[in-house]
Amino acid sequence: MDESVVSKQAMQRMPYYLQKLKEMHAEGKTEISARLFAEMFGFTEIQVRKDLASVSSVHGKPKVGFKISPLIVDIENVLGFKHENKAVIVGAGSLGHALMSHKGFSEYGIEIVAAFDADEDKKGIEISGKPVYGMEQMQKFCNENRIEIGIVAVPQIAAQRVCDSLVLSGIKAIWNFAPLHLTVPRGILVQNENMAASLAMLFKHLRGVSDGTD
Amino acid sequence: MDESVVSKQAMQRMPYYLQKLKEMHAEGKTEISARLFAEMFGFTEIQVRKDLASVSSVHGKPKVGFKISPLIVDIENVLGFKHENKAVIVGAGSLGHALMSHKGFSEYGIEIVAAFDADEDKKGIEISGKPVYGMEQMQKFCNENRIEIGIVAVPQIAAQRVCDSLVLSGIKAIWNFAPLHLTVPRGILVQNENMAASLAMLFKHLRGVSDGTD
Repeated sequence: MDESVVSKQAMQRMPYYLQKLKEMHAEGKTEISARLFAEMFGFTEIQVRKDLASVSSVHGKPKVGFKISPLIVDIENVLGFKHENKAVIVGAGSLGHALMSHKGFSEYGIEIVAAFDADEDKKGIEISGKPVYGMEQMQKFCNENRIEIGIVAVPQIAAQRVCDSLVLSGIKAIWNFAPLHLTVPRGILVQNENMAASLAMLFKHLRGVSDGTD
Repeated sequence: MDESVVSKQAMQRMPYYLQKLKEMHAEGKTEISARLFAEMFGFTEIQVRKDLASVSSVHGKPKVGFKISPLIVDIENVLGFKHENKAVIVGAGSLGHALMSHKGFSEYGIEIVAAFDADEDKKGIEISGKPVYGMEQMQKFCNENRIEIGIVAVPQIAAQRVCDSLVLSGIKAIWNFAPLHLTVPRGILVQNENMAASLAMLFKHLRGVSDGTD
């Protein structure tokens, strides 16, 4: 199985398959048909077969379906959820606090090991058992702990500066929660959590509903 | 200006334009060129002109550029950030708590007015000045307050049930933070905040970096 052939779109569907597979596994089920997945998610059966074939060497049999256990392992591998990915977060405000406290992330193989904040009052405190350091300690910490993932949870006005510091600290991938475009050198990935755009889509739908168009 | 002609892709770029325009406005600037935007965001100048023309009746002049103030108003209108959109949230755990406490949402025109939680211990408490009610009060509250937006911030196992309750309460748009596919009747929009997929993209990039491929 060559994970480079998995499309971005398929990657985005994988967490949904994975969640359902885990649920069925917990219920004691051992097999799932592509048809059931297709109905559940509103995809075509061909799409589901193609998605699952792209991540798994275990092909589904017509009428019998896919074996659940090996498929869970294969999808977790492709998603990278079985690796231990250490991350730091910059910004220990309300959003940073929440991300550090969120128990669900461990399931995805990411661990936030420390936070950095420019606020002198936050230096030295712990959030959910993880230390908050001053910004000046970031580079040393990231180098020593070989951190490759940085989470940006600061106000937009500070975000580019923080991003630059993360890049200087050796970070290779940035998960950006600030609503702005970050400029990074080639080879660094920025994954935006564009909540403003999500809200805009919700509002657009609501206006469509009240106009009678959508 | 007919907002229905604004593509989904353009809608997703608008928050970035808006943020930059607000920043420049605060700095006392009055005009921006499409070229500057294009360089800043890595889009083509034609793309920027097309995006801005799709939301604004004030066309940019070659060499002079776009006037910042009316453009801010136009983009905020298209995004729906100037309306007051009331929302309820289901799930007052760590994520729900964070979303309720996040001050940044007011800028986007959304206000979380109440939370609902199945946990008896949470009933009656306040989070950031907003009440937490039991699930049985949801339908009445949403009807009386004409709530159209519901935020799902519960564990995945409870999410579909919560989604069904929101639909029964008259919700027209759901902002889903649980990592699963929600099934809804026609006419209801589900906007997924698929953080698991975002993380998978980050991890994929990191493996690409260490493999020397990407």
